[in-house]
Amino acid sequence: MTQHPYYNPQIHGAYERFNIGDLPLACGETLRDCTLAVVTLGQLNAARDNAILIPTWYSGTSKVIQDVFVGAGRAIDPQKYFIIIVNQLGNGLSSSPHDTVGPQARAGFAKITIADDVSAQHRLVTERLGLSQLALVMGGSMGAQQAYEWAVRYPAMVQRLAAIAGSARTSQINQVIADAIIHGLRSDPGFKAGNYVSSSAVSEGLEQHARLMTLHGLSAEFFEQQHYKSLGFDTVAGFVEGFMIPYFAPMDPNALITMLEKWRGADVSHSCAGDLRAALGRITARTLVLPISQDEFFPPSICLADAQLIANARFKALDSPFGHLGLFGADAHWLQQVDAELAALLDQP
Amino acid sequence: MTQHPYYNPQIHGAYERFNIGDLPLACGETLRDCTLAVVTLGQLNAARDNAILIPTWYSGTSKVIQDVFVGAGRAIDPQKYFIIIVNQLGNGLSSSPHDTVGPQARAGFAKITIADDVSAQHRLVTERLGLSQLALVMGGSMGAQQAYEWAVRYPAMVQRLAAIAGSARTSQINQVIADAIIHGLRSDPGFKAGNYVSSSAVSEGLEQHARLMTLHGLSAEFFEQQHYKSLGFDTVAGFVEGFMIPYFAPMDPNALITMLEKWRGADVSHSCAGDLRAALGRITARTLVLPISQDEFFPPSICLADAQLIANARFKALDSPFGHLGLFGADAHWLQQVDAELAALLDQP
Repeated sequence: MTQHPYYNPQIHGAYERFNIGDLPLACGETLRDCTLAVVTLGQLNAARDNAILIPTWYSGTSKVIQDVFVGAGRAIDPQKYFIIIVNQLGNGLSSSPHDTVGPQARAGFAKITIADDVSAQHRLVTERLGLSQLALVMGGSMGAQQAYEWAVRYPAMVQRLAAIAGSARTSQINQVIADAIIHGLRSDPGFKAGNYVSSSAVSEGLEQHARLMTLHGLSAEFFEQQHYKSLGFDTVAGFVEGFMIPYFAPMDPNALITMLEKWRGADVSHSCAGDLRAALGRITARTLVLPISQDEFFPPSICLADAQLIANARFKALDSPFGHLGLFGADAHWLQQVDAELAALLDQP
Repeated sequence: MTQHPYYNPQIHGAYERFNIGDLPLACGETLRDCTLAVVTLGQLNAARDNAILIPTWYSGTSKVIQDVFVGAGRAIDPQKYFIIIVNQLGNGLSSSPHDTVGPQARAGFAKITIADDVSAQHRLVTERLGLSQLALVMGGSMGAQQAYEWAVRYPAMVQRLAAIAGSARTSQINQVIADAIIHGLRSDPGFKAGNYVSSSAVSEGLEQHARLMTLHGLSAEFFEQQHYKSLGFDTVAGFVEGFMIPYFAPMDPNALITMLEKWRGADVSHSCAGDLRAALGRITARTLVLPISQDEFFPPSICLADAQLIANARFKALDSPFGHLGLFGADAHWLQQVDAELAALLDQP
């Protein structure tokens, strides 16, 4: 396989690729040779009960998850836990439009759901890593959506659940946002129905994507209080053009759309005929629901409604002017509080 | 002049066009034969002190202003007041890119500011209508921005000021929103640097524009509580595709960009070297600051900060799940409260 200029270990750090075989998908198709890019840190203990699973969020990879959450002396400590960071399907490192051959290549890539990710991860964790128990499944944003799906589908396996800045079902406003972002990518004439020459041929669509991620990913407070200055930018326009647009520019539009459609359709109640109460009622994990107060994608009110349907949940909204992109870890105060919450969760049985 | 398929009296109701002559603009250019499309209702009284001026908001025209705010028995009552509704420059009815000839036509249209609108309106009101006093200058959204500019620049003329869902200076987040919307229009290949064949040639850009107006114009509550059902739509997608996209589709992209750049740069402190406190300190009008609690363009916190810098201001945040587009008047409960507030303001000296 030729190396992609963005999705490679030089940019995202080392990872293993597990071919877990053909994966039947919720849409009815089968993803051939489904491959998960995985980073493991630390050691499994003798009791095989110290594994932590962390799926990735939208457009991110295992690298940012490791950078933000993992470290010696921190809550997610590789000296204590066996940490498994799994790149979500379609994120460019696990099976993705750009590295699939045959009819599922590129624009033909199958429609993936959060449930499919969790099916793939379950196969990895049980069949390849031989685990029957997870001390914690946690994630931010779309990672939280996967973590919720885990706790609903495999309650006996998931001892603890931490949903950071994410919800069990994608809200209506989030669907409108996803539609707008998808439209921005698809309406770029260089997109050519997914058969573009390169990401740079879709630069206008990717720029619009970055502008929308700026608008909803951050918060009004971030702009009014000029927190972009702490990132080294003098003006809002400088921040958008110097950080947000270049950040997304090298990404693969088909990969982004795969993830956006997955995000748009996320709903743990799919297995309970749309009954969210019934689905969340299945969760037995000790649960931590940790929204960001200024989050426009996953506002605390939505997350609180989830928490209220879970038997053993702690709900805590944490403040960050970075809004949803507090997840990037630039807000040290927010991150300290997250660590403290995760440590407290892991300290409990 | 050939008639435009959207900007005409058949669609927007009857209006008079006043040619107020060449208008020097803040940008240094002069707008030749500046023409204001104006609707007047009611009669000027003998004391010439019952005039109410209402400038229009973004993309709207005198028709929607009249429909939403004016009526016999209502606060803005043509049986009591002489009501002057002025279409803002570039809105398609007053001087606009599509109806200007020569070098300022279409893509060459001058950059207009809120201050220029108020200069034009001042000339209309004083020289053409012969008024030296306005009982009330009021507006919603960009109309509020023009009303603020009036009260700061001509404090002796403006007896009362009502700023509904608008602020005295455009916030940083609003600038980011405006940039994203402008980018969505300009990046449509059919836009051709403003020299497009027709609005339908820019349909993708106009669709993206509509999606962004949906996201920021309404509120999360509107979608979560499915208020679009009260407008006759079963799904979010149906609402976006059946209402928002068709609503903006016939509009002129150059006109929208003219208004967006005006909105983006709105700042009453331009005349006080950027000192908002000094600018708002000039206001002597009895003032009503009336944000919508769920407004994402002009959140109550920004409007409260304005009110706190005005000597004689009443601040009241009103609830509407429609968010900023409560201004469309579909929320009868919100509108009743606005009417009550305006009536109370007009009852006071």
